[in-house]
Formats: sequence, structure tokens, C-alpha cells
Amino acid sequence: MALLLPAVPLAAQAQTPTATDSVNIRRIYDEALARGQSYENLRYLTGQIGARLSGSPQAAQAVQWGQLTMEKLGLDRVYLQEVMVPHWVRGKPEKATIRADKGKGVSLNVVALGGSVGTGGKLRAGVVEVQSLAQLAALPEAQVKGKFVFFNRPMNPLYVETGKAYGEAGDQRRSGAVAAAKRGAVGALVRSLTLAQDDLPHTGTMSYQEGVAKVPAAALSTKGADELSQLLKADSNLSVELEMSCQTLPDVKSYNVIGEIKGTKYPVQIITVGGHLDSWDLGQGAHDDGTGCVQSIEALRLLKATGLLPERTVRAVLFMNEENGNRGGIKYAEIAKANNENHLAAMESDGGGFTPRGFNIDAAPAVVRKIEVWQPLFAPYGSGQFAQGHAGTDIGPLKGQVQALVGYDCDSQRYFDIHHTAADTFDKVNRRELELGGASMAALIYLLNKYGL
Amino acid sequence: MALLLPAVPLAAQAQTPTATDSVNIRRIYDEALARGQSYENLRYLTGQIGARLSGSPQAAQAVQWGQLTMEKLGLDRVYLQEVMVPHWVRGKPEKATIRADKGKGVSLNVVALGGSVGTGGKLRAGVVEVQSLAQLAALPEAQVKGKFVFFNRPMNPLYVETGKAYGEAGDQRRSGAVAAAKRGAVGALVRSLTLAQDDLPHTGTMSYQEGVAKVPAAALSTKGADELSQLLKADSNLSVELEMSCQTLPDVKSYNVIGEIKGTKYPVQIITVGGHLDSWDLGQGAHDDGTGCVQSIEALRLLKATGLLPERTVRAVLFMNEENGNRGGIKYAEIAKANNENHLAAMESDGGGFTPRGFNIDAAPAVVRKIEVWQPLFAPYGSGQFAQGHAGTDIGPLKGQVQALVGYDCDSQRYFDIHHTAADTFDKVNRRELELGGASMAALIYLLNKYGL
Repeated sequence: MALLLPAVPLAAQAQTPTATDSVNIRRIYDEALARGQSYENLRYLTGQIGARLSGSPQAAQAVQWGQLTMEKLGLDRVYLQEVMVPHWVRGKPEKATIRADKGKGVSLNVVALGGSVGTGGKLRAGVVEVQSLAQLAALPEAQVKGKFVFFNRPMNPLYVETGKAYGEAGDQRRSGAVAAAKRGAVGALVRSLTLAQDDLPHTGTMSYQEGVAKVPAAALSTKGADELSQLLKADSNLSVELEMSCQTLPDVKSYNVIGEIKGTKYPVQIITVGGHLDSWDLGQGAHDDGTGCVQSIEALRLLKATGLLPERTVRAVLFMNEENGNRGGIKYAEIAKANNENHLAAMESDGGGFTPRGFNIDAAPAVVRKIEVWQPLFAPYGSGQFAQGHAGTDIGPLKGQVQALVGYDCDSQRYFDIHHTAADTFDKVNRRELELGGASMAALIYLLNKYGL
Repeated sequence: MALLLPAVPLAAQAQTPTATDSVNIRRIYDEALARGQSYENLRYLTGQIGARLSGSPQAAQAVQWGQLTMEKLGLDRVYLQEVMVPHWVRGKPEKATIRADKGKGVSLNVVALGGSVGTGGKLRAGVVEVQSLAQLAALPEAQVKGKFVFFNRPMNPLYVETGKAYGEAGDQRRSGAVAAAKRGAVGALVRSLTLAQDDLPHTGTMSYQEGVAKVPAAALSTKGADELSQLLKADSNLSVELEMSCQTLPDVKSYNVIGEIKGTKYPVQIITVGGHLDSWDLGQGAHDDGTGCVQSIEALRLLKATGLLPERTVRAVLFMNEENGNRGGIKYAEIAKANNENHLAAMESDGGGFTPRGFNIDAAPAVVRKIEVWQPLFAPYGSGQFAQGHAGTDIGPLKGQVQALVGYDCDSQRYFDIHHTAADTFDKVNRRELELGGASMAALIYLLNKYGL
């Protein structure tokens, strides 16, 4: 049957956009600004389901919600893609206290890092503060053994894009526990990855290494980290008492949720747009990444509502398990490969639902240049900042199977204030900022579809 | 003595920025991101003084605060510029109730528009809804006489820049009461100027006209306006009962607060940067315009802290009375004219303290082109969107006495959600967004100073 379909063009020339493109993109934005559904969809997802860590009952509810929400749009096909996911549970609220020789203990707001083992009751030990993994590696073992390693390097405030600072400081959270255990430490305490100065601890994934002892790892708020650092200066023999009951249970069956508009002319060629449906268990997973999910669904709705039905197949994918395993993203790419699918481009929104700035493109230079030709069409909407860069975790495994990975880029100043915390809630999302984002994504899909790459 | 000073260059050529400019601008941003003082200054102004309507004791406190804050920076000169300002007071909290034939009354959240007369006790009348001043003018007098005119045209959601929608819908608030009174109405009820759908009424200035009866004018929340509109459809004979005790008292002596860095080479030529110190009496005047004040002060601090001391004189001006009279802005321009001052450029920040986008320039085309040459220097900070447009109310009266009026432009999506309401509070301001704005302003002043216009 494939022989009856028109061949998919192999490579497109860079195409100068036309006045029609400008008009059609304006129609997409108008529809989003006047009748956008992202915000009300997000209100439901965050308010009625809430946080939805992989393996949780809420994650299962979110799968049902995603499927139902896309079915209501009358897409050509809505289906689930099975994937086994990790199942980590936080257990009881964590407790931590600084105990110095004199005076009573000082309570610290802490949260377990995702994937951490528990403490098995109260774990009390001295503390050694470091600014980096390298500094830890250079310390005499006697200064580390039997202690908590306290990783306290702040995110660099000088980057304009906060994501860059997050990436750089993140080694402490991701690898701190393994590095600490290798030196004989009993646990890791990590300064929260945020540029805000407050008492809100930020969770996030960490990992263990085969053959290295699994020691518990917790995040301190920036305020708590500064306090601990100050107290250590006065009394280097102080101890911290940590109590966490988190644990990893057996893997659970879950799903990516996929909705499709079938292409009218080249249905075998696929453009994917997605966000991740899972979230951390604190807050409501609003900006991370409820916004990416509702924007991806909205992108398809906008194409339908404006009658700009694509010639290529457009898929919205709500990926499962970005936060602690990326099993959904890996599974999606595996199945695409196994089925020999033809993927033109994959786009992801996972930097929050703030005002659009542009797109980060991960593709061959010639492909980047083709996309950059469209930049002027986005300038009137303030989203014409096109750059080469990381596109997204969920779509990452498609690399090599797709011509372009595209990351939706929005204002990054507020994101890490609430990222992975109890404060990542619906009220932090602005309706217009969110809807403008969905429109930007739909507009780029419209162009990818029309011109190819 | 002026003869001993170097002559001020009359007109500069458009100058291509150098690598040194790029480095110096990076230093300005670094200082702002690492050690910016805008946020803590704003915390004090909003938290310790709060709302500061012209003529109020808080406005007087804010003048003292502005003077002291700039004196602490060790500027070359800090002084006050006397100006008489209007003194309108809200009185007791307003009350409004919809009374239909059946059932009990429905309460409406309302606030008096600034400058409105009171109702003199309870004022009860029928309601006629219109979408525009033109529609009101076309109505038969019998449908208007003795009633409230209810102006209910929403802001246009389709503009990406919300300020444009505000400007267009604002005629209802500014001129509604006069238009209503001319047709024999007893008052004006105006839909709040916001794109948000909530129960927060937005105040703002309105005016009366010589020879036209002064009728009271109140703002309804968007939710309240929709409710009233719906009830009117069911019962066009319903009435609204309004009670407001606001009044205008005699003018009060107040001040613009001015701080100066004297130019090292051309001290007679002046670059002004400012915001307005007064605010409406609801909320804390955080985004409107505490942020503009602290950013203007910060711009001078950044030039000093980086050692980029200007050859021309740079003045921070905290204008009094932008909200209901612009007396401070008018006075500043009058005195500049009377003293035959030489003004190169005037910049204003009065669109909130959100993430910078660029600048709106109001100048001759040749001058705009000179400024646009600097655009690439701002692109790395996401603030390279230079456009021709309205620059600001406070600096507006300088037009014709200055070569360029420049409006600092920042993200506009959230501004009208809280503008002129009880929700314009410190917690709505993000530290990094605010500090990035002050840096953008200082960077442009650095270039204006170095190259002239």
C-alpha cells in the first residue's frame, strides 16, 4: 500500500516563507490567544490529579486523562505505548537536624533526592563541606570517612539562561552520593539547584553505581545550606541527624500516551511534539512538565481548529518517566526504530510554560540553517530566538533517527525557583504565557510540515 | 565657567560598537546578577512604605526613602524638586450590589476610579450596557438618562503586547464618566482593564470635563462585569446600588527626587533615567512602579560599581504623580526648559519589572537608527528588541527638549493581571527579572553616554 502513496521528499531546499505563512501563523496565535485550551487542561491535570511520579496511582490517572483529553479532540488515532518504569516512593516526610555541642538542634528542611535509599532510622554523622566533586576527591580520606559530604556549590548567577547554571551545578546532585560513598562517607547532603534564596528544598534524580555502597542523599534548601555552612565554620565537629524512609519498589507497568493527526499526503513521515506526563511527587508538576503536555496536545488542536491540517503525520506524545529514568523516551525511540518509522523532526517542551523566546535546535548545520530561515515569522511574537542547543531529554533517544530535534525555549528566570519543589503549582502558570507557547510550537510544526527539512 | 568646559558634540555619527563595549556591558550585567540591589530596595519600599498615592503620608515617606537611598550611593548630588500634586482619597471601602426584582442582592467587588467623586450615600439606578463610547453616543437618551452606563468592552486578547490592548480599551475608563454624564447618566461602571478573568477590580485615573456633571465612576472585576452582563440579559430592569466615599482634597506639596552622577567631560549634557515614585493606593505599587524607581537608582549604582563613570551627567529621577496628573513629569520638563538644560536622552521604566525584551524609542528616524546600531550588544541578554514607540508618561513632557525618549520594554504578559490592584505586591516580582532590567537600562545609558546621539 505504501507504493500508492506519494514518495516523501528526501531533502527540502531552505524555503523562504511566504505571506501566506505569515497569515496562517497569525491564525494559529489568534486561536490560541482567544480560545486556547492549554490552561484549562492544565488546571485539571494539576488540580484533580496533581503530582504524578512514575509508578504512582496518580501517574496511572494521568495516563487515562491524557488519553481521554486527546480522544475528545477527535484525533485520527489515540493509543498507549507500554513501558516499564521505576517505582520510587518517598515514604514519610524527611527530617533533618543540625546538632552542635551546645544549644538545641537546628531543624533543616530537606527532601530525599529521587532514587535515594532511606536512612534506616536516624542516621547521625559529622559533616564535611565541599564545593565540587574534584575537591572531595582531593580530601584526605580521614576527613570524609563516616561523615556526610555536604555539596554546597551554588548555581552560577551570572548566566542569563538559568538552565546553563543548572546543568553545571547538577553534577553534585546526580553524582554526589556515589562520589561520597567512594570515599567512605555515609551520605550526601546537596544544596538545592536553584538561584532563589529561600527555604524550599528541590528534589531531582540521583543515581548509584554498581559496586559502590548506596548511601542516602538529600537536598537542603539554599537557606538551610547557607545555615549549615555557617554553623560548620563555628563548629566543624557538629553533626547532622537525617531520617528518610524512601525506597525503590519493583518496576511498574505504565505508558506513553500518543495522539496522531494522520498526514494527508505523506502520512508515513512523522513530526513528534511532546512533554513528559510524569512529575516529581512534590507540588503539582505544573511547569515541570504539565505545561509541556498540555501545549503538545494544544499544538495538534490548533492545527485542526485553524484547518491547517498537515500533509505529514503529527504526533503528540506524553512521555512517561522523564524525571527518573527516561524509560518512556527510550521506549518511543526503540519502537520507532523497530518499526522503521520515518521521523522528520521531534519537538519537546520541558522548560516550563513561561513566555516563549524561541527554539533550541539539535541538528546538522545544514538542517539548522533551513529552520533558521523561518525565524522572521516568529519575531512578531517575541519567539524568534533560534539557537543550536540541547532539545530535550524525552526526544533525546531519537537522535540519529530524526533530522532535527527541537527544544521549545521560553523565559528561564522563574523556572528554577520552583523546579522539583512543592511550589511547582498551577498558580505559578500564567494563562497567556502558556497559550503563546503552544502557538509557537504549532507554528513551527506548521512550517516543518509544509516545507520539510 | 561653561567656556572652560569642552564643547558638547552636536551630533554623533552612528557608531559601531566595539569589543570593549561588549566587555563593559557584560560587566554591568555581572554586577547586577551577582550583587544587584534593586530587589532589596524594592522589598523595603513596598514592605515598609507600601502604596503611596500622591498627597498621602506614604508618598511623603517614599520621597524621604528615595533621597536617603540615593544619598547612600554617594552620588554627586541628590536633591528634591518641589511640585504641587492632587490629593484624592478613597475613603471607606466601596460597596456595590446588583438588585434584581426577585432574589437577594448580588455583591460586586468594585473600586472607585481615581479622581472620581463619591456617591453621597447609596446611589441606586438602572444599568445600560455598552461596548464603546460610540455605542453610548448612538443610544436614545431615554435609555441612558438616570442610569449607570456600564462600559463592558474587554481588552483585545489577540495582541501579543498587552499594553496595546490596554491603550485601546482605556477610553472607557478615562472618558466613560464624562460620556455618561453628557447623556444624563448618574454614574459609570467600567470593566477592569485586564486580560485576566478574576474577581480583582483595577483602579486607574479618570477625568471630568468643565461644564459636564461629575458623576461617580467605579471599576468592576472582569468576573463581576461578566456576571452583571449576564444578569442584565435576564432582567434589563435590574438596578445597581453603589456606595463610594472618595473625594478630592486640596493639592499637596510634594517632590520629584533626583540623584546625579556629574559627567567627567560634558557635565552640562544630561541623560535622565526614571520611574514614578507614586502609586495607586491599592496593593504596594510593586510593579507599578516601584520596580522602575529601584531600577533607575540601580542603573546609576551599576555605572559607579563597574567604574564606568559617564562623561555626560546621568540623572536618576523618581517622578511624583504619574498616576493621576503627571505633575512631576511636567514640572521636571518645565524646569529643564527654564534652566535651558541640555538633554541628550531620557529613559523610563514603567511597564513592570519583568524579564527585559528591549526598548521603545521615540525619536527622529536618524536618531532611532543610531540607537539601533547597538542592538546586537543586547541580544545575548534577550533584550535586543528595539522598536519605535511610546516611551513613557513621566518623560513625555520632555519631548522637543531631548534628542531621544526611550522606554524600557519588558515582558508584558503578567503586567495587567495585577496592574492598579491590591495584588500589585512584592511577591509578584522576580529578583533576577528585576535585576536584569536595571542592567539593560544601565547598558543603554553606558552607550548613550559614550557615543552620544
